[in-house]
Amino acid sequence: MNNNYIIAIGREYGSGGYEIGKKLSEKLGIGFYDKNLIDVAAEKSGIHIEMLNKADEKPANPLVNPFLHPGYENGTVNDRLFWTQSEVIRDLADKESCVIMGRCADFVLREHENVLTIFIQAPLKNRVERIAEKYLIEIPAEAKKEVLRNDKIRRSYYQFYTDGKWGGRERKDLIINSSVLGIDGTVDFIKEFVEKRFNLK
Amino acid sequence: MNNNYIIAIGREYGSGGYEIGKKLSEKLGIGFYDKNLIDVAAEKSGIHIEMLNKADEKPANPLVNPFLHPGYENGTVNDRLFWTQSEVIRDLADKESCVIMGRCADFVLREHENVLTIFIQAPLKNRVERIAEKYLIEIPAEAKKEVLRNDKIRRSYYQFYTDGKWGGRERKDLIINSSVLGIDGTVDFIKEFVEKRFNLK
Repeated sequence: MNNNYIIAIGREYGSGGYEIGKKLSEKLGIGFYDKNLIDVAAEKSGIHIEMLNKADEKPANPLVNPFLHPGYENGTVNDRLFWTQSEVIRDLADKESCVIMGRCADFVLREHENVLTIFIQAPLKNRVERIAEKYLIEIPAEAKKEVLRNDKIRRSYYQFYTDGKWGGRERKDLIINSSVLGIDGTVDFIKEFVEKRFNLK
Repeated sequence: MNNNYIIAIGREYGSGGYEIGKKLSEKLGIGFYDKNLIDVAAEKSGIHIEMLNKADEKPANPLVNPFLHPGYENGTVNDRLFWTQSEVIRDLADKESCVIMGRCADFVLREHENVLTIFIQAPLKNRVERIAEKYLIEIPAEAKKEVLRNDKIRRSYYQFYTDGKWGGRERKDLIINSSVLGIDGTVDFIKEFVEKRFNLK
C-alpha cells in the first residue's frame, strides 16, 4: 500500500499562500513543488523543458497517452504543458509525499486517495497591503490592480482546465483566511489538519 | 472593552454541521443558538413570538429602527422575522460568547469584530448516507432528494437576505469538509482555531 500523501494548495494572490505552503512542507519534512520545481520534475521524468518550449513544433509527446487527451496534437503549447504537468503531478503523487502549489493539482489528483485540498485566502485589503509592502508599491491603487490582475490569471487558468470554479469549495477540504491566525499560525494549524488526517502523530 | 466572541456557523444539510456546532459550544462552555433558541432570545428581549407570528397584522415593531429597514412596514412576515432576528443576534453578540447556527449570522455580524465565520460541508455521497441512516430512509434516491431540497431552502434563504452566495468563501474564515476528520475530530480542530484566534489558552 502506498502511504504517500499530497497537500494540494491553491491561493489568492497576496494571501501568503506560497509562504504558508513552503513553510508547511519544511515543517512536515516533505517535498515542495511549485511551477519551477514541477518543470524540474518534468525534466527528471525525461520530459525536456526545451521540448515543452517548442511543443507546437513537435509531434505528440509519446509520454502522454493521446487517447486520454483527444486532440492532443491540436493542443496549444499551454495545453501540452498542462497535460504533461498533470502527468508529472500524478507521477509525483505515486512516488513521494509533498506539497504542490497551484497547477490545478486538486483537480488533477481528484481520483487519488491521500490528497488534502486546501485553499488560502485573505480579505482584499490585507492582500493589497501585503503586496504593496513586498514589492514596494507606494500607490495602493497600483497594488490593488496587481492583486486583482494576478487573481484573474489564476482564475482563468484554473477554470479553463478544470471547468470548476477557482477557489470553489466543491473540491476543497479546507479553505482558510490566513489573516485570522497570520502566516505562521496558519502553517501550524494546517499542519495539525494534515497530521490528524494522515495519522502522522 | 467587550471580550465576547461569536462563532457563526453555516452548513450543508447532512454534513453534521449542527452536531459539530452543538458539541463545539459545549466544549467551549458558551451558548448555543439555533432557530428555536433565537426565538427564545427574542422573547427574552421583549419581542413576543406571537407578535412575530402575527407580524403582518401589526404596525412596525418599535424595537427595530425603521430607518435601518426602509419598507419595514411593507415587509412580509418572513422579512420582519429576519430583521427582528438580526437585531436579536446583534444584541446577543454584545452580551455573550456563543455559537450561532445559520440565520445568516455571518452577514448580520459582518461589522462585528470578534466573529469567526465557519462553513461545514461534506461530499454529497457522505451526506446522503448520513441522512439515510439518521432518518431511516431506505431508498438512497429519496435521501438524496431530501439533502438537495434542504440545501436549496438554505441557499435560497441566505441568498435572498444577504445578496451573497450561500457557503461562498468571501465571507468565511474557515470552510471545512467534515468527512476528513469526522464529527468529533472536526469539533476539536475548529476548537483549536477558535482558541488560537481569541487567545483562550
